[in-house]
Amino acid sequence: MEVKLLGHFSSPFVQRVKWALKIKGVEYDYCEEDVVNKSPQLLKLNPVHNKVPVLIHNGKSMVESLIILEYIDETWKTNPPLLPQDPYQRAMTRFWAKFVEEKFLLVAWEGFTSQGVKHENAVKSALEKIEGELLKGKKKFFGGGETIGYLDLVLGCASYNLPAFDKIGPMKILDPLRFPAMDQWINNFRNHPIIKGDIQSDEELLIFWTSLANKITKN
Amino acid sequence: MEVKLLGHFSSPFVQRVKWALKIKGVEYDYCEEDVVNKSPQLLKLNPVHNKVPVLIHNGKSMVESLIILEYIDETWKTNPPLLPQDPYQRAMTRFWAKFVEEKFLLVAWEGFTSQGVKHENAVKSALEKIEGELLKGKKKFFGGGETIGYLDLVLGCASYNLPAFDKIGPMKILDPLRFPAMDQWINNFRNHPIIKGDIQSDEELLIFWTSLANKITKN
Repeated sequence: MEVKLLGHFSSPFVQRVKWALKIKGVEYDYCEEDVVNKSPQLLKLNPVHNKVPVLIHNGKSMVESLIILEYIDETWKTNPPLLPQDPYQRAMTRFWAKFVEEKFLLVAWEGFTSQGVKHENAVKSALEKIEGELLKGKKKFFGGGETIGYLDLVLGCASYNLPAFDKIGPMKILDPLRFPAMDQWINNFRNHPIIKGDIQSDEELLIFWTSLANKITKN
Repeated sequence: MEVKLLGHFSSPFVQRVKWALKIKGVEYDYCEEDVVNKSPQLLKLNPVHNKVPVLIHNGKSMVESLIILEYIDETWKTNPPLLPQDPYQRAMTRFWAKFVEEKFLLVAWEGFTSQGVKHENAVKSALEKIEGELLKGKKKFFGGGETIGYLDLVLGCASYNLPAFDKIGPMKILDPLRFPAMDQWINNFRNHPIIKGDIQSDEELLIFWTSLANKITKN
């Protein structure tokens, strides 16, 4: 097959790419990697970072989930597009994607894995800004209307990882009273036809993250 | 004027945007900001990060230099383009831009400001990979041939800051024997007609960074 994806079930970065390919209706071969004992294939195709996801298309490989999403959007131009067409809207989308990635998801992850609450305020302050954006657009999704777009896919893992982090970890991030738009977005996202059948199950996640949290606490 | 740029003379992120506008032949108003006492205009237009550069076009503002470069390329489509047209080449360009930004320039800056040599190996290891890319392409610039592209602009500040850092700071990064392609790229870049008249002078830089290095040492 001309499209192949190297991934790992626990990676939200891989999940974004899977969703994007599904939105575009692109068929692909999926190859589950062992992220502890990395395959020679992974090391060869991502010699700089040795990480998943790696997308291979017509024999050419590329890495970094946000860059892969842009590639998918530029290569399979059939509707629906992932990014808006207007240059200013594209800039805003890319800005918020970078913000979500660096100031929200990464900090939430650091807070979870450090088993400390010192990140909680930073995560909530970032979430406050995302909440503001959701309220400003008054849209069901960042893609607009019923359509899931690039920014929804970037934020996507918040819809399944944050509830699990809240249950197991030291922080309590989600709060429907304080962040009602985010709460609504999570519901909309999880129930979108593209996402519904293709999202980590709560049970699997709880087992996986609890096991990781236990390992971290023991170390 | 319909295009306005808020900047600071010391910011390599602002410098990229200036070069990009020059390449595209876009005229603009430039507004030098006081980065210590930030103007109400800056705080209003970049409420999330409060930082320069801010580009304002037709009354709409945007931030983050790499995102602004993509906006400029998408808005003023006249030749020369900043990014290649082929989706795979675009993905590679974006990959290396992210790498240069995060693993090279940022680490070189941290090494300089921390007055420690602990970053030196990380910077050199990143530079080795960039050297490999320069050698692989066997091109004068990343933009190809005589043309300066997106990735040249991203790496651009290395051509004037790194020699100054090497002179003043605790690390010695550049080494023409070990990194001859980088040495050649720096020469080519500094002497390109677009860049030559619009680059920080070595004297100004030495004064500015020496003063900063002294402040850091005293603290």
